[in-house]
Amino acid sequence: MSPQNALYAQSGGVTATINATACGLIETARRHRSRIGRVYAAHNGILGVLAEDLIDTSAESAATIRALLYTPGGAFGSCRFDLSPLPQGRAQYERLIAVFRAHNIGYFFYNGGNGSAETAHRIATILPRMGYPVVSIAVPKTIDNDIVHSDSSPGFGSVAKFVATSMREAMADLASMAHSSTKVFVMEVMGRYSGWIAAACGLALPAGGDGPLLVLVPEIDFDRTRFLAAVRARIARHGWCAVAVAEGLRLRDGRRLTQAGGDGIPGHEQLGGVAPLIAAMVRRALQVKVHWGSLDYVQRAARHLASQTDVDQAYAVGRAAVRFALQGQTDVMPVIERLADQPYRWRIAPVALAGIMNREKRLPRRFLSADGYRLTARARTYFLPLIRGEAWPPFAAGLPVHARLKRQPVRRQLQSAFRNIS
Amino acid sequence: MSPQNALYAQSGGVTATINATACGLIETARRHRSRIGRVYAAHNGILGVLAEDLIDTSAESAATIRALLYTPGGAFGSCRFDLSPLPQGRAQYERLIAVFRAHNIGYFFYNGGNGSAETAHRIATILPRMGYPVVSIAVPKTIDNDIVHSDSSPGFGSVAKFVATSMREAMADLASMAHSSTKVFVMEVMGRYSGWIAAACGLALPAGGDGPLLVLVPEIDFDRTRFLAAVRARIARHGWCAVAVAEGLRLRDGRRLTQAGGDGIPGHEQLGGVAPLIAAMVRRALQVKVHWGSLDYVQRAARHLASQTDVDQAYAVGRAAVRFALQGQTDVMPVIERLADQPYRWRIAPVALAGIMNREKRLPRRFLSADGYRLTARARTYFLPLIRGEAWPPFAAGLPVHARLKRQPVRRQLQSAFRNIS
Repeated sequence: MSPQNALYAQSGGVTATINATACGLIETARRHRSRIGRVYAAHNGILGVLAEDLIDTSAESAATIRALLYTPGGAFGSCRFDLSPLPQGRAQYERLIAVFRAHNIGYFFYNGGNGSAETAHRIATILPRMGYPVVSIAVPKTIDNDIVHSDSSPGFGSVAKFVATSMREAMADLASMAHSSTKVFVMEVMGRYSGWIAAACGLALPAGGDGPLLVLVPEIDFDRTRFLAAVRARIARHGWCAVAVAEGLRLRDGRRLTQAGGDGIPGHEQLGGVAPLIAAMVRRALQVKVHWGSLDYVQRAARHLASQTDVDQAYAVGRAAVRFALQGQTDVMPVIERLADQPYRWRIAPVALAGIMNREKRLPRRFLSADGYRLTARARTYFLPLIRGEAWPPFAAGLPVHARLKRQPVRRQLQSAFRNIS
Repeated sequence: MSPQNALYAQSGGVTATINATACGLIETARRHRSRIGRVYAAHNGILGVLAEDLIDTSAESAATIRALLYTPGGAFGSCRFDLSPLPQGRAQYERLIAVFRAHNIGYFFYNGGNGSAETAHRIATILPRMGYPVVSIAVPKTIDNDIVHSDSSPGFGSVAKFVATSMREAMADLASMAHSSTKVFVMEVMGRYSGWIAAACGLALPAGGDGPLLVLVPEIDFDRTRFLAAVRARIARHGWCAVAVAEGLRLRDGRRLTQAGGDGIPGHEQLGGVAPLIAAMVRRALQVKVHWGSLDYVQRAARHLASQTDVDQAYAVGRAAVRFALQGQTDVMPVIERLADQPYRWRIAPVALAGIMNREKRLPRRFLSADGYRLTARARTYFLPLIRGEAWPPFAAGLPVHARLKRQPVRRQLQSAFRNIS
C-alpha cells in the first residue's frame, strides 16, 4: 500500500518567513518517503482545498524548495477564509473529505495564526467523526506575535528586526535635518489590536533614558495632550523626536484614531493611516516640520533583512509539524518555548489547538514604561534574541532572488466544483 | 608654516551614503597631512560655518571615520539654507571670511545637490574677490539623481536598490493575498519634481511584458481614467496590480495630486501623501481591497541595503574632491562619468559648477514605455549597474552598527555671534 499524501496550506496575512516553514515541512516530509507520499500544497489556502485546486510540490526540485527559505510572501497563495462550524458547515466538511479521499490525504498542515488554528482543529476533530481519519496540525505564522502558548510567532522576529532597523536609520536621518528642517518623524507599523511591532521599534534606541523616540500602541489609550507634551519635551531636549505608531491606536472611547478622523480631519476614514493623522496633529499643535511614513506590506515582506532566529524557528515549526504527525500527534500546534534568555535557547513543543485557537496574546503592560512610550529592560530581554542574526538572501543583478515554482497542478479527481463556500 | 585646514559641510536632504563621502574625503585628507592640516566639519551645514559651530574630525579615530562608510543620515548635521547672492548677502560672505581666517581654512568642501553647488560656486568666486583665496569644491549627493553632467548621483543607487527590492518583496506578498483579499498595493516614494526613484521601482518586475506593476512619475501628467483602466487590465490578467507613485505626481493643470486633494477628499492637503489618494481612488472605482504604504525617510536612510556601486561612488567623489583640491582645482564638482554599461565602468571627472548649479536632470521620456507605466530596456540598462552589489553594514545584537562620533567642538575664535543669516 502506498503511503498517504500530505496537504499543506497557507492562511491569513503572509510573512517574510512563512515559506521557510513550507521549506522545513517539505524537506522533512521528503526524508520520510516511506510514510508520506507526496506533499501537495493548496492553491490559496483552504479555499484551494475546497476548490480541489492543488499543487504538486514533488514537481519542484530540491533547489527550488530550498529557495523557499528566502522567498517572502506565500509561495502557494494564502486566503482570508475560515471554515464554518457544524452543523451549517456540514457541506464544507463533506467536500473536504471528498477532496482528501480523492487525493489520499492522510496529513493536513495549516500554516496560519489563531483563526487558522481553529480551522485545523475542526478538521482534526470533525473529519474523523464523519468517517475520515486524518492528522491535522496547525503550523504557526503571524507577524502579529499574538499566538498564545508560543513565546514568539514565526514571522514576527523578522518584521521586528526590519522596523527597528528602519527606525534606527530614519532617526539618523532626522537627527541630521532637525536643526533647520524636520523635527518629528512618525512611522506607522502594522498592529490592529496589539502593539508588538510598534514596541519593537523601541529597540532602535539604546537602553535607558528619555530618548527621542516614543511608541504608541493600541493597548494604551491615546491621550493627545499627554502625547504632545512628550513630543515637545523630546524636541526641547534632543532637538527632534521620532514616533512609532501602531495602525490600531485607540482613543479612550474605544474607537480607532483612524475611525475618529484624528483631529477631526474630514474624509480621513476614506484614506486610512494613522501616521498622517498624528503628523498633522503634531504639526498644528507644535508648529514644527513633520515627516511621516507608513510601511504596510513592505515591513512584513522585508525578507532581505530577516532575523536568523526567525528563519530558524520558521523552518523548525515546519519540520516539527511533520515529526509530530509521524509520531501520531494530531490537533496540535508546534509552538516555540523559550528555555533561556541569554544565551537564548528555545525548543519546539506540541500544544493542543483547543488551548490556542481564537485567543490573542497581548503586549504585556510591563513591557512599556509607566508613561507608556518607552521599552522596559524586560521588553528588551524578550525582544533582542528574536531579531538576532542576519539571514541575508542571495541577490542577483542587484535584487533579491526568489524561488520560481512550477506550481504544477494536481489533476482534478472530482466531477463537481464546490460552490457552497460561504 | 603649517598647512591650511579643510572644512567639510553637509547640505540638504541626507542619504544612506553621504557619510561614505565624508569617509572618503577625510581618509584621503589624512593621507596628505603635509598639505592639509585638520579636517573640520561644520555642524549643520553652512549654518554651522556662519555660526562658527565647527567639529574637529581629527579627534575621531580611524575606525570611527571608517564606520562612516556604513552610517546613514548626515553625521555632522545638514541644513536647508542657501547663501544669498551679492550684494545683499555681503555680510554672510564677510562672516565666512572671518570664520575661515580664524580657523585657517584653505579648502571648503560642500556635500550636496544642485542648490549646494551654487553655494560652493559663490564661495569659490566671491571670497577670493573679497580678498580671501580659498579652494571651494561641491561634492555631489542626492537621492533625487538630478545633478546634470553626473551620470548618477551618490545616494540614488542605494535608494533605488531599496525601493526596487521592497517593491519586489511586497509584490510577492500581494500575489499571495490577491485571490480572496487585497488586489492592489500602492507604494509612495520620494520625488517631488522627478520620477527617478519611482521609475527604479520598475526594476522589481522582470523585463518585458505588461506585468502587474505600474509606475507613476511627475514627468507624465496623471490621467485618472487611463490609469484606472490600466489597473483594471492588470487585475483581469494577473489577479493583482502594484503601483509605485512619486510624491510629486501632477495633474494636467500643473497642480500636484496632493494639492488637488485627489478625488476631492476634503482635508487631505493637511495630511500629505499621494499613496492614500491613489488607493482611495482605486478602491472606489474598482471596488477592490487596496493597501498602500509610503516609505518617506525610511527609503533614503536604508543603509542596511545600500548598493555597493553607490557606496563605492560616494566614497570616490569624496576622495576625488580632495585630490582635485590638491591639484589646485576649485569651483568644480567631481561627477560620475559612465564609460560603459556592461561591464559597467565609470570614473570621476571635475566639472565647473557654473554648468551644474540650479539645473535639474529629469527622467528621460524614453526610459518609460509609450503608456508611461513601464520601464524600457534602455532604462534597465541605465539603472541596473547602479543598484549592483550589496554593501551590508555590520550588525550587533540584531541591529545595524553606526559610527559613534565624539563631535569635538572646535574652540571658537570669534567674539561675536552671527545673526544676519536670512
